[in-house]
Amino acid sequence: MRPSQRKPDQLRAIRITRHYTRHAEGSVLIECGDTKVICTASVEERVPPHKKGSGEGWVTAEYGMLPRSTGERMQREAAKGKQSGRTQEIQRLIGRSLRAVVDLGKLGERTVTLDCDVIQADGGTRTASITGAFVALHDAVSGLMQKGLVKENPLKEAVAAISVGIYQGTPVLDLDYVEDSACDTDMNVVMLGSGHFVEVQGTAEGHPFSREEMDTLLELAKHGIGQLVEMQRKALQG
Amino acid sequence: MRPSQRKPDQLRAIRITRHYTRHAEGSVLIECGDTKVICTASVEERVPPHKKGSGEGWVTAEYGMLPRSTGERMQREAAKGKQSGRTQEIQRLIGRSLRAVVDLGKLGERTVTLDCDVIQADGGTRTASITGAFVALHDAVSGLMQKGLVKENPLKEAVAAISVGIYQGTPVLDLDYVEDSACDTDMNVVMLGSGHFVEVQGTAEGHPFSREEMDTLLELAKHGIGQLVEMQRKALQG
Amino acid sequence: MRPSQRKPDQLRAIRITRHYTRHAEGSVLIECGDTKVICTASVEERVPPHKKGSGEGWVTAEYGMLPRSTGERMQREAAKGKQSGRTQEIQRLIGRSLRAVVDLGKLGERTVTLDCDVIQADGGTRTASITGAFVALHDAVSGLMQKGLVKENPLKEAVAAISVGIYQGTPVLDLDYVEDSACDTDMNVVMLGSGHFVEVQGTAEGHPFSREEMDTLLELAKHGIGQLVEMQRKALQG
Amino acid sequence: MRPSQRKPDQLRAIRITRHYTRHAEGSVLIECGDTKVICTASVEERVPPHKKGSGEGWVTAEYGMLPRSTGERMQREAAKGKQSGRTQEIQRLIGRSLRAVVDLGKLGERTVTLDCDVIQADGGTRTASITGAFVALHDAVSGLMQKGLVKENPLKEAVAAISVGIYQGTPVLDLDYVEDSACDTDMNVVMLGSGHFVEVQGTAEGHPFSREEMDTLLELAKHGIGQLVEMQRKALQG
Amino acid sequence: MRPSQRKPDQLRAIRITRHYTRHAEGSVLIECGDTKVICTASVEERVPPHKKGSGEGWVTAEYGMLPRSTGERMQREAAKGKQSGRTQEIQRLIGRSLRAVVDLGKLGERTVTLDCDVIQADGGTRTASITGAFVALHDAVSGLMQKGLVKENPLKEAVAAISVGIYQGTPVLDLDYVEDSACDTDMNVVMLGSGHFVEVQGTAEGHPFSREEMDTLLELAKHGIGQLVEMQRKALQG
Amino acid sequence: MRPSQRKPDQLRAIRITRHYTRHAEGSVLIECGDTKVICTASVEERVPPHKKGSGEGWVTAEYGMLPRSTGERMQREAAKGKQSGRTQEIQRLIGRSLRAVVDLGKLGERTVTLDCDVIQADGGTRTASITGAFVALHDAVSGLMQKGLVKENPLKEAVAAISVGIYQGTPVLDLDYVEDSACDTDMNVVMLGSGHFVEVQGTAEGHPFSREEMDTLLELAKHGIGQLVEMQRKALQG
Repeated sequence: MRPSQRKPDQLRAIRITRHYTRHAEGSVLIECGDTKVICTASVEERVPPHKKGSGEGWVTAEYGMLPRSTGERMQREAAKGKQSGRTQEIQRLIGRSLRAVVDLGKLGERTVTLDCDVIQADGGTRTASITGAFVALHDAVSGLMQKGLVKENPLKEAVAAISVGIYQGTPVLDLDYVEDSACDTDMNVVMLGSGHFVEVQGTAEGHPFSREEMDTLLELAKHGIGQLVEMQRKALQG
Repeated sequence: MRPSQRKPDQLRAIRITRHYTRHAEGSVLIECGDTKVICTASVEERVPPHKKGSGEGWVTAEYGMLPRSTGERMQREAAKGKQSGRTQEIQRLIGRSLRAVVDLGKLGERTVTLDCDVIQADGGTRTASITGAFVALHDAVSGLMQKGLVKENPLKEAVAAISVGIYQGTPVLDLDYVEDSACDTDMNVVMLGSGHFVEVQGTAEGHPFSREEMDTLLELAKHGIGQLVEMQRKALQG
Repeated sequence: MRPSQRKPDQLRAIRITRHYTRHAEGSVLIECGDTKVICTASVEERVPPHKKGSGEGWVTAEYGMLPRSTGERMQREAAKGKQSGRTQEIQRLIGRSLRAVVDLGKLGERTVTLDCDVIQADGGTRTASITGAFVALHDAVSGLMQKGLVKENPLKEAVAAISVGIYQGTPVLDLDYVEDSACDTDMNVVMLGSGHFVEVQGTAEGHPFSREEMDTLLELAKHGIGQLVEMQRKALQG
Repeated sequence: MRPSQRKPDQLRAIRITRHYTRHAEGSVLIECGDTKVICTASVEERVPPHKKGSGEGWVTAEYGMLPRSTGERMQREAAKGKQSGRTQEIQRLIGRSLRAVVDLGKLGERTVTLDCDVIQADGGTRTASITGAFVALHDAVSGLMQKGLVKENPLKEAVAAISVGIYQGTPVLDLDYVEDSACDTDMNVVMLGSGHFVEVQGTAEGHPFSREEMDTLLELAKHGIGQLVEMQRKALQG
Repeated sequence: MRPSQRKPDQLRAIRITRHYTRHAEGSVLIECGDTKVICTASVEERVPPHKKGSGEGWVTAEYGMLPRSTGERMQREAAKGKQSGRTQEIQRLIGRSLRAVVDLGKLGERTVTLDCDVIQADGGTRTASITGAFVALHDAVSGLMQKGLVKENPLKEAVAAISVGIYQGTPVLDLDYVEDSACDTDMNVVMLGSGHFVEVQGTAEGHPFSREEMDTLLELAKHGIGQLVEMQRKALQG
Repeated sequence: MRPSQRKPDQLRAIRITRHYTRHAEGSVLIECGDTKVICTASVEERVPPHKKGSGEGWVTAEYGMLPRSTGERMQREAAKGKQSGRTQEIQRLIGRSLRAVVDLGKLGERTVTLDCDVIQADGGTRTASITGAFVALHDAVSGLMQKGLVKENPLKEAVAAISVGIYQGTPVLDLDYVEDSACDTDMNVVMLGSGHFVEVQGTAEGHPFSREEMDTLLELAKHGIGQLVEMQRKALQG
């Protein structure tokens, strides 16, 4: 029995609110149960040095947590003077995941930065960030197309992400914080709408996992991501 | 005529939402027109070195802006590796303002940290932070009293803050971003419910102000803060 | 009775020494009682990015204290690897105060940096810095005019600063360290020769101040600044 | 055809040299083709704060590359003043991988730090680091047991790692730098001697991968890691 | 002919002013021609970790230059966020030089920090710092003895320093900035009153020096340091 | 009697291995007894700002120690976020020493960076770095000449370095770690093949040295460097 009473293959309640803040080209609040992340997409008409003159654009991400998004207050990274290894790992993952669905040539020489800021955390903040950031990116890209700055749609398809893991011997979908803390194997899966993998990151600090367990987890993830992609589609129609 | 059509002595629409996030001992979303700040109060059972063994507690504040809370995306301070002078100035101001209403002896040897994170900015973020942080602090302190950890109420009275300035020759209350950018004289006033001053910070980079102008601005501020203190009171009853 | 035996409205002995060091375009040692600050003005033929191509110049300030300018040795900020919030707050104040009297267009595309380094501290270092920096800036600007690099005088009028506060119930002018430590209300006032305000920063961490107290303090400050501006004038004639 | 003429399931020549440097409790040079990494294990009789008083030890890792271990000289991280996100990600991976085979209670309250320093890079430095670090850790632990500081063997089994990927449509084992640069899908697999997974990190920045491709890659990895574990065993007997 | 018209073995005018600032246990302004350095000695009743419980004290130094002590304004190290290699090299040299004359056991478990801050630079700032710091240290130590905190004099003898070099083919004593810039070989010599060497640092970036040149330079240095030690002695009597 | 049984004027066994790593334009492993340093020379077709447009090149050095190159593990400088004063002092010394033998005009507008990374330390790492870096630089420069990028040999002559010191009253050559720790006077000498000095850095923290001792030490150094230059010559022929 899961602490949240959910079934093993049941997602938490997901809510995607577009146009959440006013200034960004794309701004989404994504809520996955008690995990809440503001994802904004900012367009800037410049590219990093390695893209200058290439005719291609760039998509990148930054991630942060408000100090009291968590049960215990964390030290503010700006005050500490550096981003933790975990933060950097997550923002690199978000950036790679979003770039997987963007044709950088069609985007043109501009940068879209996805800022994912967790205002309340209850597990799964990195996967919620990816799922929400796609919607924000979609809005930013639509704006560029409406203004005629981008001619052809640079988005190849949808991308979303979910965590899976083995909790008390049972493979479960979409771990919340309580499950995440008690579960040795934890896998984050990033997948396209078409069902191909972009990232698979499985970690077993205490309890190594077998090939069979891995197969089950990948199926669960596929099941969940199918639903998330559908929710993204509906939110973008709304 | 103000760009927002407000009267010179008219505040923006203020909304104070308590219990905004789940983990903090006090959590408030304050909205002053389009300025939106999440203020959380976190209680920790330890004090900084200069208070150790004193029997007294400490109240401090940190301030941050989400990178795209503003019209142009700002660089993330955690990524830059340091907080700007502006950020440090603001968080020192918030901390001093809140300490002005706390009896640190009655609080006991514990620290309350007020995190003020701007999710959308339209001028007046530091004053909104102070006004909202007081409510978050009140909730945190009430919680300590309910748990019996604090015997006597350490809050001496309410504190709130507002900006005033001279916009196109007219003294106005509660500047939004458009007014703030176009106005030379800008004064932030922090006041107690009893009408005494805690902080007065008047700045005239371009156009120095006379004693008479200062008097008018202080009156306007008093008028606005009276209303804010009343809104805090109602929010705390709600 | 003030610890220094001064009358409530009495400044400390002020001494302004021009051409204190050899290399700078303006170099002043200002002594206010036991507070001693070296203020130098350095001219560089470049401007920060936000002024490039604008035809306007820039005036900025940096502030530091020698580690043993104080009763207890402070850690050297260069060794710590960062400037404290207090340092940044002060250097921003000095910069704004000086810019208030400079016509940046007449200065032309060049930067004047005012370095204020405290070699001995006894309260009031930030206000002494502003009063001394004006004289250094004046010398630097005169040099530019003598060389024909600047045609019209970019200095609009004099600027000086002083602290005032309430010490044991009595409003007093020009607080020294002993008074500053014992006094709850502390106000720094920056004023033009013409009597207009550039900055008013009143702070009451423990004891909030009334409107009447504020009026008295502003009068005291005006009285003191009038004398400081006169001393600046004499020093510049000397 | 692979640039190195290897068969798709063929490892590069592997060489493991124990006792490579003199001071460390374990010191290994691992060579995987042209990739060369010095892995040292250092024992210190203290633990990080989160383990103090727990009766358990800690195992952690740091990773670095000599500036000219690569084709183009990279900036020295010590000179830049911070470790890149990539470096932090890798050292966190190495640490987790090694902790997966250590019973921290049997280790006792001490820390083993695994320093993996790349002196020559040709792809696969993070997986070579894990494979080599296990041997260094084994030597350090044997030393502790010989000295009687540790009673029971805290090492549960062997751990090794390898990269796999899809190069020009063909799944291949143990990518060198040329293959790694030209290949979209890249997966690092960390596995126990028993064939269970500790980490699976598959990334597809350009070309997403199917479930079938993933299955093939995992089989290849298992095949390679079986051989690596055997080489570790032989080296430890030698 | 030297630019300053001095004879090859002639020192610049030296002036040593004791009790220059008020707070430090020793405070000296040393002027060597146009080079001016404030040297303060601060006593703290604690020692760094490597001396804790040893019964011995510690003597250390820090060095800084005011940004406009030089012909061109230098960036402030506190603003840059780190001390340059040159600064660190110099402060390490000053510390070692002073420790050479202190019996750390007689000093007892306390630290004397020598802050050498250059307010005007014209070559030879590091050697002037050492010569001045000795006098400041002497005053601090005398104070400790007068208070009875130190029983036996921990100062073994005097130490002073000077630069020598080969300028336009001629070995000269006490280089000023013009000579220093034009001269390839530059040697800083730190010597005791007894004529023994504490430090010899000879550097020839462009023009390597012969053994004979080195001998001549060492004689010149000895000649100069003899005079400096005499000036220190007189200053301490004055 | 020296702990290593060497005679007072006897070097440790020296081994110079060229082409040690694959990517660098020059790559040398130098072993001086148990001290082992990898010295690589990297050529980049750009110069630092102060050489831009000068027609001259630049030669610079960086130095590092692997964390466990020493008896006790040292903290990794990249993790600490800054290079120690010692590291900076050493890399400045290496850079100056190598520049002393390079005609920067003949090198042309390019930079050679010498990375000296200590993989095992037993005293004398800075002098071994200089001796080894010369060989790596020689290989890099030969490569530039073979490619026709450099016409005339920019290397003027050989440079090598050694430490000397007074150990238990006896002047000795090439101190190992045990001698270095027990010996008060320590001198690093950098010399050309022609017998002229480039750097002499003698330090006596505890026991000041006389002029006679200095003379003896310089003779010992000359004796040792003569042999080192011969070994460099042989290695370059090999």
